[in-house]
Amino acid sequence: MRMYDIIAKKRDGGVLSRAELEFAIGGYVAGTVPDYQMSALLMAIYLRGMTDEETATLTDVMAHSGDMVDLSAIAGVKADKHSTGGVGDKTTLVITPIVAACGVKVAKMSGRGLGHTGGTIDKMEAVPGTRTEMTQEQFFAQVNRIGLAVIGQSGHIAVADKKLYALRDVTATVGCLPLIASSIMSKKLAAGSDAILLDVTMGSGAFMQNLPDAVELARQMVAIGTANGRRVAAIITDMDKPLGHNIGNALEVAESMAVLQGRAPADLTEVCLQLAANMLVLAGKGTLAECRALAQKTIDDGSAFEKCCQMFAAQGGDVAALKDPAKLPQAAYSYELTAPADGYIVENNVERIGAASVSLGAGRLTKEDTIDPAAGIVLHKKLGDAVRAGESLATFHASDPGLFPVAEETYRSGLVIGPEKPAEPPLIYARVTADGVETF
Amino acid sequence: MRMYDIIAKKRDGGVLSRAELEFAIGGYVAGTVPDYQMSALLMAIYLRGMTDEETATLTDVMAHSGDMVDLSAIAGVKADKHSTGGVGDKTTLVITPIVAACGVKVAKMSGRGLGHTGGTIDKMEAVPGTRTEMTQEQFFAQVNRIGLAVIGQSGHIAVADKKLYALRDVTATVGCLPLIASSIMSKKLAAGSDAILLDVTMGSGAFMQNLPDAVELARQMVAIGTANGRRVAAIITDMDKPLGHNIGNALEVAESMAVLQGRAPADLTEVCLQLAANMLVLAGKGTLAECRALAQKTIDDGSAFEKCCQMFAAQGGDVAALKDPAKLPQAAYSYELTAPADGYIVENNVERIGAASVSLGAGRLTKEDTIDPAAGIVLHKKLGDAVRAGESLATFHASDPGLFPVAEETYRSGLVIGPEKPAEPPLIYARVTADGVETF
Repeated sequence: MRMYDIIAKKRDGGVLSRAELEFAIGGYVAGTVPDYQMSALLMAIYLRGMTDEETATLTDVMAHSGDMVDLSAIAGVKADKHSTGGVGDKTTLVITPIVAACGVKVAKMSGRGLGHTGGTIDKMEAVPGTRTEMTQEQFFAQVNRIGLAVIGQSGHIAVADKKLYALRDVTATVGCLPLIASSIMSKKLAAGSDAILLDVTMGSGAFMQNLPDAVELARQMVAIGTANGRRVAAIITDMDKPLGHNIGNALEVAESMAVLQGRAPADLTEVCLQLAANMLVLAGKGTLAECRALAQKTIDDGSAFEKCCQMFAAQGGDVAALKDPAKLPQAAYSYELTAPADGYIVENNVERIGAASVSLGAGRLTKEDTIDPAAGIVLHKKLGDAVRAGESLATFHASDPGLFPVAEETYRSGLVIGPEKPAEPPLIYARVTADGVETF
Repeated sequence: MRMYDIIAKKRDGGVLSRAELEFAIGGYVAGTVPDYQMSALLMAIYLRGMTDEETATLTDVMAHSGDMVDLSAIAGVKADKHSTGGVGDKTTLVITPIVAACGVKVAKMSGRGLGHTGGTIDKMEAVPGTRTEMTQEQFFAQVNRIGLAVIGQSGHIAVADKKLYALRDVTATVGCLPLIASSIMSKKLAAGSDAILLDVTMGSGAFMQNLPDAVELARQMVAIGTANGRRVAAIITDMDKPLGHNIGNALEVAESMAVLQGRAPADLTEVCLQLAANMLVLAGKGTLAECRALAQKTIDDGSAFEKCCQMFAAQGGDVAALKDPAKLPQAAYSYELTAPADGYIVENNVERIGAASVSLGAGRLTKEDTIDPAAGIVLHKKLGDAVRAGESLATFHASDPGLFPVAEETYRSGLVIGPEKPAEPPLIYARVTADGVETF
């Protein structure tokens, strides 16, 4: 077998076999297939596409390029979730305790933030003392004991994906649905859970900008997981507004705890309950309505918040900081960003909000950057809200007041105040399962 | 400007500007654009295509990546020709003396053979003593003195093309018309002639396998040359049979001299006269009929053969070997390949004939291989000829009789004897000029 022939086959619109995909991916990881041949293949895939079966096989091959986590040491159904990324997206911190409080095991590996989107591990580390690295034995033991652990993703998971992603990133081959879907799902397959809920974000702060693309990505990921023996569903959620009001690591922990304690804004709580309910359905806990009630109950009776506290305690985190946000890292400086005119917020680009937050120190532009857990933005007005000239739209938090001007300029570059209230985006656009697509 | 954006633009079907092409090609030659980005761009070009104007600009940028030969030190119109490659394709050795004998200057750089196709420089070096390297001053002086010089292509011509071709060769991006056309024409533009005749071969021994592709390649190359201020035409010639009867370097020199001396088979002579006449038309020597007559006269009066002898003499070659083929290198061993049955030759794959010749030592599989100038094949029967069982179809020549079995197996793998005489391919399929396409 020769890589040349594999490239030529895909170039001409052919369907690659498992043996061909194993040769290409295995060779690339081993270094016998050079970057320049893989990038030609990636561009051919970008322009020629892949069948569902081909994508499912590619994903399985990529998953097997690294460790395949065997969760059989943990009894019962194991549930996982993944978000395609957003600004203020703190749902993992909320829904994994809810699901665990309902008796479904969650043994989750999570990532760090890069660019304008945040990562759960960074948020967890904003709670003083929290450890996000542990041995596999400690990880399994914690899940068996309290039903929940969220740790950093091992460097040995889906090794091919890391190398492929770095190449796609510099060869304009990122935005290709089969490659996006296989990248995400290879890590989920390798991470070993039985039931996987996907949160596909859509809007100005997300990779997916329109519903047909978002639905197709969701459909492909569900098909991949199903073909590989997992129970998978996807929820397409709005990212034309940040999720909730807080952006930044400690700020998002505080807001997440507010949801778990039943004192958060209705929209954020609603999205979290929908996601948790869908995860519970996949885990076999009943109908969507039944699961929604189960999830609601864990907030009402405090069991979800208690589960979250158990997890942080088990991972060395300061539980007092979960109960009292004042004990989370606090920025030394704050700045009020005011409305330039009366009217409605008709545009408030979420990528720009995320970039402003990164410039305050809350995120990374490169993997080597360090982050400031206290930095971030608290939104007072969001897309569609009425504002008065001079009124505060958002409070910026930073350890250095010199960071405010660039953050303000970045934020304002995506902000438009207009005379008419724009149409409100829904919180959830669609639900995609192995049985089909349901739009709302 | 970023290479990423250039790749993305072409990926999405955009037309690259001169500045973008200069950034990509210049960066690739300088090493600031890595192989893996260039291969992604090449695959995007393969699948998205290029406009004529874009291809012409790419070609000009590639030509300027190395030395641009300035032939202004040579008075008058300078004519060049190029063949897209074939087996037994010795036309350069025949038509450049004819054209020079008609008073049109030929200052030509030629290549070496690789794979199943031969190269003029290898053939010239089969004449003992011939030098194919000289300084630019010596080159110009020879052309000014006798009107003709054929030398090896300088390593500094179209530097980008060499690097791009090596990358295309391993990334399945060779067979793309704008890339083929720009590769060939970049070298022709850099070589500096005013009038360029292209011989686009078509058939089982050629890169182009069908008339529409061959016409389109010809059309693109003519358009590139015309857009860059040259007079260009293309002739599409048959390569479903080798050209003439001799394959191998010394053998082809002998056959070429037979054409110039008016004692060669009519078909080979006819193709050479057509090509020479078209070159003379481009050089402004009259109508096609007038130029054909001029060319014929140089054979009849011996002036073309005399011009060829002058060139070899000027380049140190043994002219006695041009006049008496027995003085050319002779192989120690020969072998008769016989017909397996009565009938007609209904298939005689030219690539297989060329590969058999290479296996006898007449060509190279890699650039590092050495060649045996005496080795090769003399065809006695070609596609369409009637044969009798046991009759010799071809004589193999080699310095080592151990090479005959593999060569025979290779040759026979493309040979089919059948009961019915197949249709005869024409010698010339079409003529493509800036004014349009004329098919025959």
